[in-house]
Amino acid sequence: MRKRFKAICMISVLRLGHRSQRDVRISTHCGLVARALGASEIIYSGEPDPKLVDSVKSVAKNWGGPFSASYEKSWRKVMAKYKRKGFYICHLSMYGLPIQTIIKKVRKRRNVLVVIGAEKVPGEVYRLADYNIAVTNQPHSEVAALAVLLHEYFKGKELGKKFKRAKLRIVPQERGKQIKSLRQR
Amino acid sequence: MRKRFKAICMISVLRLGHRSQRDVRISTHCGLVARALGASEIIYSGEPDPKLVDSVKSVAKNWGGPFSASYEKSWRKVMAKYKRKGFYICHLSMYGLPIQTIIKKVRKRRNVLVVIGAEKVPGEVYRLADYNIAVTNQPHSEVAALAVLLHEYFKGKELGKKFKRAKLRIVPQERGKQIKSLRQR
Repeated sequence: MRKRFKAICMISVLRLGHRSQRDVRISTHCGLVARALGASEIIYSGEPDPKLVDSVKSVAKNWGGPFSASYEKSWRKVMAKYKRKGFYICHLSMYGLPIQTIIKKVRKRRNVLVVIGAEKVPGEVYRLADYNIAVTNQPHSEVAALAVLLHEYFKGKELGKKFKRAKLRIVPQERGKQIKSLRQR
Repeated sequence: MRKRFKAICMISVLRLGHRSQRDVRISTHCGLVARALGASEIIYSGEPDPKLVDSVKSVAKNWGGPFSASYEKSWRKVMAKYKRKGFYICHLSMYGLPIQTIIKKVRKRRNVLVVIGAEKVPGEVYRLADYNIAVTNQPHSEVAALAVLLHEYFKGKELGKKFKRAKLRIVPQERGKQIKSLRQR
């Protein structure tokens, strides 16, 4: 039996270079994965996209939290601010060092800012990050890389996370679908 | 040190209900994640989209394999065929049973067909699957669910997978990017 998930740490996710037409679904997936797998918030930079932020917020409102989504124009300011606050900055990149050789060091940090890029990531991000981490050195997906990082960081305990103030909850089924509506406590 | 990855098993991925305009990036990510994290192939159903199949194939050509991408109009036929071939069918769904309670049983199977849906999955899929598996019962992303399933199935060993006949390979770096061009052996 895996231990119960406890949020004794704070993982924030910074999504770089969002483009409001092209990236809307991938960026939404990044936000939902961040929430579902134990992060506390996602911050989007790139093109402003209030609909994107609202759609992630509305999932958190219905399915529980705490989880916040927000937009910040300057990723530089976000990285500087979180560094000042003592966050460890992990940039996910296919060019980085293999996650399996680094994850133990990351787990020692209670507060982590995970940076995930879009198409082209400025060189400055690589320099500002405490670690550039690769979830395989193969081309694939920032959504998957974020999922594996969170799953490894929390050692699978995030899978049992309970969400507070949920209006909706799924009752797991062998076949079919069952959703329960909950009164807010 | 994690054990070396060995392909003693065959994981195929079936992506349901692809829509050529709306899903192209998510479906591409599904294919690339399948390849990068140790699956042997992806089969797309839904709207035919030769560009999608070609783009996943071309990644496998440049970055190595073996990995195949293909299109089949009827997901029903694919599921029936793989069932006949003895594949265990795992359908990823937020409504299913928690992966952490089922993964041990799945790992015992050498040949697995992982089915991932798009927006609306027909009830028949739930009935045909040997298991409906949830990577958390929260709404998030089929890309992330696929990544966590493969990562759990292979116990992280897929992260060290070597790809054959690669033309390109990344040399992992603490900072910056290094790609090596390889002569094909």
